[in-house]
Amino acid sequence: MTNPVLIEVTRGDLVESQHRGTVAIVGGGGALHLGLGATDLPVFPRSAVKIFQALPLVESGAADAFGLSDAELALACASHDGEEGHVACAHSILSKVGLDESALACGTQWPARGEDQDRIRRAGKEPSAAHNNCSGKHAGFLCACVHNGWPVEGYETRDHPLQRQIHDILEEMTGATLSDDVCAIDGCSIPTWAIPPERLALAFARAASGRDLSEQRMAALTRLRKACAAHPFEVDATGGFCTEVMTRFREKVYVKVGAEGVFCAALPDRKLGVAIKIDDGGTRGSEAAMATVLQALLAETEEDRAFLDRWARTPVETRRGVKAGTVRPGDDFSHAIRKLEDTSAC
Amino acid sequence: MTNPVLIEVTRGDLVESQHRGTVAIVGGGGALHLGLGATDLPVFPRSAVKIFQALPLVESGAADAFGLSDAELALACASHDGEEGHVACAHSILSKVGLDESALACGTQWPARGEDQDRIRRAGKEPSAAHNNCSGKHAGFLCACVHNGWPVEGYETRDHPLQRQIHDILEEMTGATLSDDVCAIDGCSIPTWAIPPERLALAFARAASGRDLSEQRMAALTRLRKACAAHPFEVDATGGFCTEVMTRFREKVYVKVGAEGVFCAALPDRKLGVAIKIDDGGTRGSEAAMATVLQALLAETEEDRAFLDRWARTPVETRRGVKAGTVRPGDDFSHAIRKLEDTSAC
Repeated sequence: MTNPVLIEVTRGDLVESQHRGTVAIVGGGGALHLGLGATDLPVFPRSAVKIFQALPLVESGAADAFGLSDAELALACASHDGEEGHVACAHSILSKVGLDESALACGTQWPARGEDQDRIRRAGKEPSAAHNNCSGKHAGFLCACVHNGWPVEGYETRDHPLQRQIHDILEEMTGATLSDDVCAIDGCSIPTWAIPPERLALAFARAASGRDLSEQRMAALTRLRKACAAHPFEVDATGGFCTEVMTRFREKVYVKVGAEGVFCAALPDRKLGVAIKIDDGGTRGSEAAMATVLQALLAETEEDRAFLDRWARTPVETRRGVKAGTVRPGDDFSHAIRKLEDTSAC
Repeated sequence: MTNPVLIEVTRGDLVESQHRGTVAIVGGGGALHLGLGATDLPVFPRSAVKIFQALPLVESGAADAFGLSDAELALACASHDGEEGHVACAHSILSKVGLDESALACGTQWPARGEDQDRIRRAGKEPSAAHNNCSGKHAGFLCACVHNGWPVEGYETRDHPLQRQIHDILEEMTGATLSDDVCAIDGCSIPTWAIPPERLALAFARAASGRDLSEQRMAALTRLRKACAAHPFEVDATGGFCTEVMTRFREKVYVKVGAEGVFCAALPDRKLGVAIKIDDGGTRGSEAAMATVLQALLAETEEDRAFLDRWARTPVETRRGVKAGTVRPGDDFSHAIRKLEDTSAC
């Protein structure tokens, strides 16, 4: 099966490039309100499921025991850009648990922004593991390990009790069976299990609605979701999609990017979950596709729609700022989304 | 028509992402030796045709009149990274023609490498048009304009005599009719005309073989091609695909990237032209696809093949350098390429 074109990139009157992929929108009751492409074939969710990977930190009582702030909980769910504020927040979590960045197993990464890279170069230094976009998640992992009395060494490996617990949480949330043959290594060295988009969307629909979840699980997810809504900078980056969208819509949406073209969202008011995977793994396609979905499911005003056009209909410009084309939803995707709006199916 | 998967990106035992696209390999006589995907549908070649866009500079006598060096001719064919050597070379061309970077219409662009960006920030400056990856091409345009007595102002517009001449050259080389309805604006503000990959491959096959070309045209193309082979740094960047491949194989190949997933090559010994377009516009796919093609058409030894594996079979690594997957040719593409090798069709 060939997944449909979701996003096209025009230049002049022609389509220059295109992004194929899969979209699943699922209701709290488990119904697939929209399924485009092979929503039943497993994809690696990568960082899009960080909120579920942060559940052991909250549910074990570790977050309270170490007195983590809401901003620190948001960083535990983040793929951040390694800006100064992110790095300071990761250090703060580590110091609360009595560790330092040498305990982080995520590896080092240069910050995304040139100015943050420059600061490191000018100091004659190299980036540390605290600059890694996953440092907050890993710092949260370490909190959970220390609180549970689990070994800190090897916390990132598949057989460690923490990763086994995350495995079980992902199975519970998605209803998918996550066997070793769909397990691989994520960029930050932890296991990642491939999950069909319709199952990922179900997990986020459950996080949005609480359906099929224990009170304790729903309380933990709501706490994490609200922490992200209150601290959207900690979740992403200055000007980043997730930061900007959660800054505007606050608790009306939880939205999270994953590497290789994944994007997931939970919409509590509408009890909906969304999962998107762009075949080519690119962020240009995944951001435009998620913005298009959010225009249908979240935007209430023309201003909301115009705000989301920043990603859903992005001008392609020359280096002198003249418009040469547009990144926009393809006709079939637009039609499917419009139909969803018209029927108010969800 | 859906173009086939050329390159796949694995993680663990699964394919995580994939890149679809079109490949055309054409002989000097015009025969399509390999055609994968819709090789007859026009794509914007973007910077892949810079060698043809540099022909007015050479054929008019401007390059000789202003005493351009081979390194400067190579820069006129380049998409460079704005490193110090590139910027100095662009300035040198401009000073020979009595102009400065304010005459460049390409717009400004930050250099690609962090260290080159850092140098500009430390000086409290902004990047200039000389840092633009197309600055050499534009400096060459200005030489041609001054030499021909054409206005310098507006040299980048579609109706300027220089761009009309380039239009006619592209029609001659490709045999395609390039009407206004396939014309759009390139990132550096000049016109770009969409051309079917099989026609682009034909143009490069002609550049490789001289077939159907005047002696003067072939002499100019050979001069530019040899200048690039002798100065591969000027064509691309430190560690860049085109620089590395032409450093190794010298005059056996002319290879050039274009934006949005385009890659073209001419192989003089085999009288072959190659054109690749990756649907999603990504360089990960286009570099891997071109390296795979060059393994079949250019590599003579196991060392050559291993060298090209750097792009044809790239490990996907964690941030601690552990292998998590591979960027590699898909099965059907591998099979088509192997068949091409086995039959020695070209």
